[in-house]
Amino acid sequence: MPSLTLADLQARLGGTLRGDAGVLLHGAASLEQARAGQLSFLLNRKFLEQARASGAGALIVPASLADSLTEPLPQPCLAVANPHACFARALALLHPEPPPTPGIHPAASVAADCVVDATACIGPGCVVETGARIGARSVIGPNCVIGAGAGVGEDCRLHAHVTVQHGCVIGNRVVLHPGCVIGSDGFGLAWESGQTGGQTGGKNGDNWLKVPQVGRAILGDDVEVGANTTIDRGALDDTVIEDGVKLDNLIQIAHNCRIGKHTAIAGCAGIAGSTSIGAWCQIGGAAMISGHLKIADRVTVSGGTFVGKNIREPGVYTSVQPLMPHADWLRNAAHLRHLDELAKRIKQLERQLNTDPRNEQ
Amino acid sequence: MPSLTLADLQARLGGTLRGDAGVLLHGAASLEQARAGQLSFLLNRKFLEQARASGAGALIVPASLADSLTEPLPQPCLAVANPHACFARALALLHPEPPPTPGIHPAASVAADCVVDATACIGPGCVVETGARIGARSVIGPNCVIGAGAGVGEDCRLHAHVTVQHGCVIGNRVVLHPGCVIGSDGFGLAWESGQTGGQTGGKNGDNWLKVPQVGRAILGDDVEVGANTTIDRGALDDTVIEDGVKLDNLIQIAHNCRIGKHTAIAGCAGIAGSTSIGAWCQIGGAAMISGHLKIADRVTVSGGTFVGKNIREPGVYTSVQPLMPHADWLRNAAHLRHLDELAKRIKQLERQLNTDPRNEQ
Amino acid sequence: MPSLTLADLQARLGGTLRGDAGVLLHGAASLEQARAGQLSFLLNRKFLEQARASGAGALIVPASLADSLTEPLPQPCLAVANPHACFARALALLHPEPPPTPGIHPAASVAADCVVDATACIGPGCVVETGARIGARSVIGPNCVIGAGAGVGEDCRLHAHVTVQHGCVIGNRVVLHPGCVIGSDGFGLAWESGQTGGQTGGKNGDNWLKVPQVGRAILGDDVEVGANTTIDRGALDDTVIEDGVKLDNLIQIAHNCRIGKHTAIAGCAGIAGSTSIGAWCQIGGAAMISGHLKIADRVTVSGGTFVGKNIREPGVYTSVQPLMPHADWLRNAAHLRHLDELAKRIKQLERQLNTDPRNEQ
Repeated sequence: MPSLTLADLQARLGGTLRGDAGVLLHGAASLEQARAGQLSFLLNRKFLEQARASGAGALIVPASLADSLTEPLPQPCLAVANPHACFARALALLHPEPPPTPGIHPAASVAADCVVDATACIGPGCVVETGARIGARSVIGPNCVIGAGAGVGEDCRLHAHVTVQHGCVIGNRVVLHPGCVIGSDGFGLAWESGQTGGQTGGKNGDNWLKVPQVGRAILGDDVEVGANTTIDRGALDDTVIEDGVKLDNLIQIAHNCRIGKHTAIAGCAGIAGSTSIGAWCQIGGAAMISGHLKIADRVTVSGGTFVGKNIREPGVYTSVQPLMPHADWLRNAAHLRHLDELAKRIKQLERQLNTDPRNEQ
Repeated sequence: MPSLTLADLQARLGGTLRGDAGVLLHGAASLEQARAGQLSFLLNRKFLEQARASGAGALIVPASLADSLTEPLPQPCLAVANPHACFARALALLHPEPPPTPGIHPAASVAADCVVDATACIGPGCVVETGARIGARSVIGPNCVIGAGAGVGEDCRLHAHVTVQHGCVIGNRVVLHPGCVIGSDGFGLAWESGQTGGQTGGKNGDNWLKVPQVGRAILGDDVEVGANTTIDRGALDDTVIEDGVKLDNLIQIAHNCRIGKHTAIAGCAGIAGSTSIGAWCQIGGAAMISGHLKIADRVTVSGGTFVGKNIREPGVYTSVQPLMPHADWLRNAAHLRHLDELAKRIKQLERQLNTDPRNEQ
Repeated sequence: MPSLTLADLQARLGGTLRGDAGVLLHGAASLEQARAGQLSFLLNRKFLEQARASGAGALIVPASLADSLTEPLPQPCLAVANPHACFARALALLHPEPPPTPGIHPAASVAADCVVDATACIGPGCVVETGARIGARSVIGPNCVIGAGAGVGEDCRLHAHVTVQHGCVIGNRVVLHPGCVIGSDGFGLAWESGQTGGQTGGKNGDNWLKVPQVGRAILGDDVEVGANTTIDRGALDDTVIEDGVKLDNLIQIAHNCRIGKHTAIAGCAGIAGSTSIGAWCQIGGAAMISGHLKIADRVTVSGGTFVGKNIREPGVYTSVQPLMPHADWLRNAAHLRHLDELAKRIKQLERQLNTDPRNEQ
């Protein structure tokens, strides 16, 4: 782990120094846990007292807050416009990833006609199939599988056990976390009644016929895909994940979806087939979005929400049941099956009251 | 990619030709994107205008629709009873999977006593454990693991990173997508209070004791399992996936479930332990079905629905909250905690009005 | 499979014998399916008639029930305080896991500086990176990846395709099922408006900046993690899974969560970042718990429930929509968007009635 002074950080990240610029930093931690020699950060005024009490060796702070303090913070500070982003960059400097060793590990199986850049790193147990291309400085982690004709751009980082299926395209600076699957077949099925099946040589009885999935999955630049997330290839046309999209773990993106640039989707969410999500959206954890929908730009969907129709306007949308003690739920939920009847009884009461002669006076 | 004429397709798939039977096709695409030389299809009358405008070289169309048109479609057509299924078969002819090279890759680890058919293909990085059997023409993709004594039938296609645990049985023509896990342990736990734990040598305090899972997972013929889907082995008896079942990605099938033939389950669904689902059911994405239930044949469960009780009759069943702008949700959801009280207030109003002397007249 | 007498089981597991202690057992099955030579068990009085009709060679039964029977069961019995736990232990004796062969498989890639105990077993296709440690008698299944500096304790069982990322710590007697991922990056993102991005060299336009995740994932002793479940490493501090926690398949545990000891979480559940769950909790399948929450000890969350606020008291909590035929749901759900209005109409009716002169009498 490198050691940097606060002045070093300022030289690389900008901002204004307050206090001892020579304080030596060799790591980072939360306000509560940081000790001497560790950098921490302060997001806003709410954490001010916690910051004053922190044992951190230095802090990154909002410039507007720093300017407004009558009593300065006890630690040396770097004051910047966006402390969260600045802290992220400082972390990357203080905890750099170990540089990969370029080359193909002897325990990898790489087809003879692949184009692997000399600066790329192919880990042990990897399988790179015929015609695949791996760009400069990309790291393919242990036991990954890159399918025939697939392309991985420059400066990518594929962690362990990633699958990129045949023909799929991965942009530059893409991060794929362990176990994620890019370009698996979409869930395309044609229904055959027993009769039709019989006509065309199928078995007797109603059954599903697999529809070959011949599109691709295309990931733009700066995309990040979480552990065990799955992105299906298109049925005919392509599934497209635009630049800067960030996907958490265990998400399902079905065939022919398009996810707009810089949209972030939290864990356990599912997007059904042919749905198009705009740019700069935020989709909460375990949200489920039905197929063939259009979601506008800058839409926020709350965690646990089910989206069953188009969303045309930016804003926050929600559909969750509130939590209750189970005994309360039992009492209340029974009425959900009879809301229509309750509404009719209210209407009937209104009619009775409004035909009350005295109300007509 | 092979080139076929429309007449070639008719010779293999049946149907009636209209227009130039000699048009050469070398691929397929959607109505919007298809160009000369590409096949597309028309599901029903709704897409008629789109079809007329399509650049496709030829179309597969419903026979009933083709018969009813006063002005025929501009493209050569193959008119059939079930255009979706016919298009699926045409796709398979136009985009055939590359034929696998039979044999065991030198970078695979196959136990000496395995029975691998001479026409099967075992990819690089595969591990096939003692006593496993792999049938004729089956392809085991890169880095798969086939456990001890497991059996894979004929003409199966296991994509990358599939796990089939020991003793499990896979039928014929089964497709397993990347990262799916067949036969993992079920979630079987026995509760031990601190006292009982003490009696039998356990640690102090309440804790869970693992119940060994000694059943198997059995998959029938023509089953398809999506990427990163998990199917647990039975606790004592077996978990059974019947013929023709189609499972999408990221689905959990718990121990001792039985899924009836030709049932299709969409992504992110979960079926809890010992639940039995009938034949020809359709379970929507992210639907969750509790344990120890019975679902009848030909039941449709809407996406995002929670099933907490048996379903004895065919039909469509739903339990989702409708989507609202968050501000509306805040206003409405508060009342969900007090529905029982609202219902009582309505009853009270009805009593008051019905004891109104004028209503008694 | 070993053969044991009922007396052998009593000698190892305690309890009181009834009937022929010499009956030879070579396996176990459910009450319905058990035949001669197979052990089964009876959880409580509800299954009494089923037990009497069972073909099982012997039964494990609750001592209290056995004492109360006027007509004893036809099968030889072992009467114990906790039959479920006793049966679990008997199963482990009747179905012992095959003993692993210690040593490193020649098709594994183990860095030279790893510390692998001589009694541990490293399977084919495994990758163990620099500085990792594997404890005594631990079995690392085929194609697992153990990251740099990670530690696996004693008597652990890692099934196929498990990923343990760099620096993570796995306790003793931990079971990790196929495809699970321990220590993937958390979903940490800093928002950069176009302006800020411009200042610091970023691209034009609003975008997300990855926050390096430098904490670890720490798993205690006796933890079990299901197939394809993901546990993220901490952002700065660690993600902690305490002793005896049992996680089912396809669960997401986000960064900086703490799961208290002996808590069990069923399949498809998701726990968002920085949430802390107490000890001895039971979280139902597909339950989703928001971030930055605290859940008390001994809380039960029903399956499919969304938890959006702290739970401070033990008890059972629920938030699910009841299931309805779809036609009923259409009628009822419409009112959910207008509950606030319905409540106001009730209030209005109450006002009208209560200002009714006759009600004021």
